[in-house]
Amino acid sequence: MEHPENDDQYAGLVVNAGVAQPPSVNPYFRPKKRAPRLAPEAYIEGILNGDITILSQAVTLVESNLPADQAIAQKVIEACLPYSGNAIRVGITGVPGAGKSTFIEALGTELCKAAQKLAVLAIDPSSERSKGSILGDKTRMQELSTQDNAFIRPSPSAGSLGGVARKTRETIVLCEAAGFDTIIVETVGVGQSETAAHSMVDFFLLLQVTGTGDELQGIKRGIMEMADGIAINKCDGSNVDKARVAKTQFKNALALFPTPESGWHPYAVTCSAVEHTGVQDVWKMVEDYMTFTKRNGYFKRNRTQQAKYWMYETINQHLLDSFYHNPEIEAALEDTEAAVLRNEISSFVAAHNLLNQYNNQQ
Amino acid sequence: MEHPENDDQYAGLVVNAGVAQPPSVNPYFRPKKRAPRLAPEAYIEGILNGDITILSQAVTLVESNLPADQAIAQKVIEACLPYSGNAIRVGITGVPGAGKSTFIEALGTELCKAAQKLAVLAIDPSSERSKGSILGDKTRMQELSTQDNAFIRPSPSAGSLGGVARKTRETIVLCEAAGFDTIIVETVGVGQSETAAHSMVDFFLLLQVTGTGDELQGIKRGIMEMADGIAINKCDGSNVDKARVAKTQFKNALALFPTPESGWHPYAVTCSAVEHTGVQDVWKMVEDYMTFTKRNGYFKRNRTQQAKYWMYETINQHLLDSFYHNPEIEAALEDTEAAVLRNEISSFVAAHNLLNQYNNQQ
Repeated sequence: MEHPENDDQYAGLVVNAGVAQPPSVNPYFRPKKRAPRLAPEAYIEGILNGDITILSQAVTLVESNLPADQAIAQKVIEACLPYSGNAIRVGITGVPGAGKSTFIEALGTELCKAAQKLAVLAIDPSSERSKGSILGDKTRMQELSTQDNAFIRPSPSAGSLGGVARKTRETIVLCEAAGFDTIIVETVGVGQSETAAHSMVDFFLLLQVTGTGDELQGIKRGIMEMADGIAINKCDGSNVDKARVAKTQFKNALALFPTPESGWHPYAVTCSAVEHTGVQDVWKMVEDYMTFTKRNGYFKRNRTQQAKYWMYETINQHLLDSFYHNPEIEAALEDTEAAVLRNEISSFVAAHNLLNQYNNQQ
Repeated sequence: MEHPENDDQYAGLVVNAGVAQPPSVNPYFRPKKRAPRLAPEAYIEGILNGDITILSQAVTLVESNLPADQAIAQKVIEACLPYSGNAIRVGITGVPGAGKSTFIEALGTELCKAAQKLAVLAIDPSSERSKGSILGDKTRMQELSTQDNAFIRPSPSAGSLGGVARKTRETIVLCEAAGFDTIIVETVGVGQSETAAHSMVDFFLLLQVTGTGDELQGIKRGIMEMADGIAINKCDGSNVDKARVAKTQFKNALALFPTPESGWHPYAVTCSAVEHTGVQDVWKMVEDYMTFTKRNGYFKRNRTQQAKYWMYETINQHLLDSFYHNPEIEAALEDTEAAVLRNEISSFVAAHNLLNQYNNQQ
């Protein structure tokens, strides 16, 4: 994407971001390593009993691109649906270096101590290209991953952001049916994955690191507008003053935006994940938001809108994937695009040529 | 769309905004009123000769949803393409009441006096629902519409924003081939149409009206980030002081955003379309931007990116339209969506059911 402010223009195009890579299963769960496939009923029973091993195996099916796996996965999701929806869903984003892992570890550990069951999921479309997403590295959250009440899952790998996001959205259903009270969806904070995460969570937290001078420059356009709250991390040591300044900067910046439809006024707090200070304040903000939006009806309204959104998004992704992953189209696309970039052929004629080629196969 | 900050999430969904309405031709150019269809060569020759009547008839074909019309339209566009690209393309948006029509009339009249050929196009997806877009009302621009050098065209009507935008984008090619130096693309300033306009213009102007108290509250999220410049209109009479205050507010707000990839720093100017003051300053801003971006190479790079974007956008729109305008799908969609909203069926199973129904027809 050449210009950040154009990200949203390209939303209809996300599938294309993955065209270059063939679909593949999550590198952390290669088929050969996998447990044998069970009957749908076995997964459903295991999940409803809160069996983490079974849950993990079911998520692997959700993430798989094999039709046989998908067939079972859809049955399991459908059966789990009536038992889902009871968790608090929190999206957490922040630029690399903001300390997301450390923050989630600190927050998660406290939640688990409070007997909360926490699932940490991730959306990182780059995981495919980079083979082994940074969000896939469990060793980042060593303390948390030892907790019985924590379920940490790396980002699914897929041919497109749409695919990655859909799988994460489906995994939420399974985790909630397995009795998790809190779902954290982590994103890398570098683009469209935020939009996808925002469309599946109740509260969207922007984790910001201070000490970079102008704190606002690092933020991807549009992300601050999505945030229901901002946590300024690394408010420790020589950073404390800078963090307080940043807090004021964000306060002023947030005041410029219209009140979101939730009626909630986003605000910024400081914390130090390393020193475990202020993390409680962040969580209190989340809980206050839940109380506030459940009272004014936005919470339910937003979830309904999200369900509708995901139906259309799934349809659209499937239609586009079928086209862009079609072998003939994949073969022709590069040359056609090049001709358009050389202005030898109009965008529209190029599009129609490819569509005719596609439809003649059907 | 329930929440403004979610607009970009729905970019993949714009086609659905039109599902409820059957495709129809532009209400201003009903077939029965229409001139007889000519051979492609006749349209091409007329357009290249700058014949406004022929241009207007060709645009009608571009806007038509009849396959026979589209076949001719695509031939004409393709032939005009080598002669297009020489105009300055300016997008103008602003909330209703900002005085867009008066401003465009004032600016356009001056441009025409300077012997510039000006085409005013519009993108207003609501034109379909409201039957007769506000942007279609030529009487708004009485002075300008009497100018020989002005070509004013209402928003095309179509089944979706994507369709409306594509037709406007194609019309730009024809207008440029007909020798227009300046293309203004007007949008209603209430949502996604801005993104569409932004993706087809060189300079994007936000027209803002003052006197509303907090000038920033009225702005749709994301639109200010798109603006290459802001014109604060109605800087006249008792409004002058307020306008100057607003100018400062915008200056401060704009300073919070990262420098766009163009390298150009957007700024705000005041003007009064009614008193014809400051309109020259706005145009000087546009001309300075053109000089600046042509020098640093962004101008060309941006147009190339836009051409690529429109190829993919056209493909995606076509794939989605084929699905959502399929009679069986149109019949099933409402009930399925209702079931999802009642949480009786998962978003994903609902999507797969509809997709299976669609694919079994192919």
